[in-house]
Amino acid sequence: MKKEKCHIVKIGGKLIDEPHLYQRILQSFSALEQKKILVHGGGKLGSDFLSRLNIPVQYHEGRRITDLETMDILVMVYGGSINKRITADLQKMGTDALGLSGCDLNIIQAEKRPVKKIDYGYAGDIKNIRIKRINDLLNLGAVPVISPITHNLNGQLLNTNADTVASALATALADLYEVELHFCFELPGVLEDVSKPSSLIQEMNYQEYLRLREHGIIHQGMLPKLHNSFQALQENVRLVTIGEPEHFLNGTNHTTLTL
Amino acid sequence: MKKEKCHIVKIGGKLIDEPHLYQRILQSFSALEQKKILVHGGGKLGSDFLSRLNIPVQYHEGRRITDLETMDILVMVYGGSINKRITADLQKMGTDALGLSGCDLNIIQAEKRPVKKIDYGYAGDIKNIRIKRINDLLNLGAVPVISPITHNLNGQLLNTNADTVASALATALADLYEVELHFCFELPGVLEDVSKPSSLIQEMNYQEYLRLREHGIIHQGMLPKLHNSFQALQENVRLVTIGEPEHFLNGTNHTTLTL
Repeated sequence: MKKEKCHIVKIGGKLIDEPHLYQRILQSFSALEQKKILVHGGGKLGSDFLSRLNIPVQYHEGRRITDLETMDILVMVYGGSINKRITADLQKMGTDALGLSGCDLNIIQAEKRPVKKIDYGYAGDIKNIRIKRINDLLNLGAVPVISPITHNLNGQLLNTNADTVASALATALADLYEVELHFCFELPGVLEDVSKPSSLIQEMNYQEYLRLREHGIIHQGMLPKLHNSFQALQENVRLVTIGEPEHFLNGTNHTTLTL
Repeated sequence: MKKEKCHIVKIGGKLIDEPHLYQRILQSFSALEQKKILVHGGGKLGSDFLSRLNIPVQYHEGRRITDLETMDILVMVYGGSINKRITADLQKMGTDALGLSGCDLNIIQAEKRPVKKIDYGYAGDIKNIRIKRINDLLNLGAVPVISPITHNLNGQLLNTNADTVASALATALADLYEVELHFCFELPGVLEDVSKPSSLIQEMNYQEYLRLREHGIIHQGMLPKLHNSFQALQENVRLVTIGEPEHFLNGTNHTTLTL
């Protein structure tokens, strides 16, 4: 039997911070007619708020180190401010949005990343996705808007990478749906030269990805997104695309990933 | 046909701020076996956070004046921090909690309070409760945990009194359920003398309420709660009680209101 389609759209960075891009992505997401889920990251708001409170932002090799005070602020910003703003704005557009964090209905259970050389603090590695509950909500006609705040089912909230949340959701839903995973950002897609929009790679397979990565052609920040995407394709996600805010709706600039 | 029972438990103030009281109320709420909804206020956390950010807290006759900057912070604290903490803690206890604000599934639509002599800013007066959606969630076995953040269905989040949210939900659900509304706080119930726990009024009817109010015996902060409660009883809510954290579970100290 042919499975029903479900879109997972991930937004982050400037799409959250810049009002014009924010409007564009919410309008195109709202116009999608099939089942759909929005996953959002944090944009600059989290870091801005931490600096306003004089809480130092710490990174190790591009990954945030989340102490308890930082974690409390991220819950407020991601799970509160951004999640509820997006939900209210989608409701205004007639989309029956439902803002969720991983603790809600225990949809995303994670575990605190084990301390090896580096203690990443309250970073959460995904352990389980409660796909039955997410499907219950989709079947009600609800449109989940999911923040990257997860929990350990022992009362501790955790901070998970939003790209990872989107890929893990896509993979978990692939048993029930024909899943299309779309990463949206301010660029036309994966670029050979990040300063030249004309260098857009329209289609990239796994061999090509490995080759470009080896030659250092792919921008550092794009690597985890691509790694997760190819993994999702290997686990039966039907389509992964990376591109500008409307690409999943009308085929404008994007990169299509294939195995 | 006899209606199924649904409990609405409202918590606020010290029950959120003090760890011992917080544990007591979540444990007794978690132990309730029928359908149930938790409504929470903000405790001191909202005001503490505003003062940490040097945002002045303004009141007029006991009601908060909410400017746009304050509103953004209340969304973070009520809709983010407190709502997700309670949800994660209930999940730990095995209760399938789902944290919601009024914008989620458009469950509580409000309108900005009209400006007359005083501009209360982004205070929201409830306009509509989408009872069908709340019932959908209850029928899934979800346990809604509802913050006092509402929205106007035009993209603006608003701040509504949590006692009012609880009473309005109780009234709206009374068509479908036999509703019991329980206000929980750190005192044994309504007291004739707020400094003497022994002055607990075990039962209070509407005439008695009017008499005590006229003689200035009822504490100022209790008046809106009682006003809303009697209104709920008049609109078919079966039972309203006010008391300590376990009273709705095992009948410990409380005041029962009757018409």
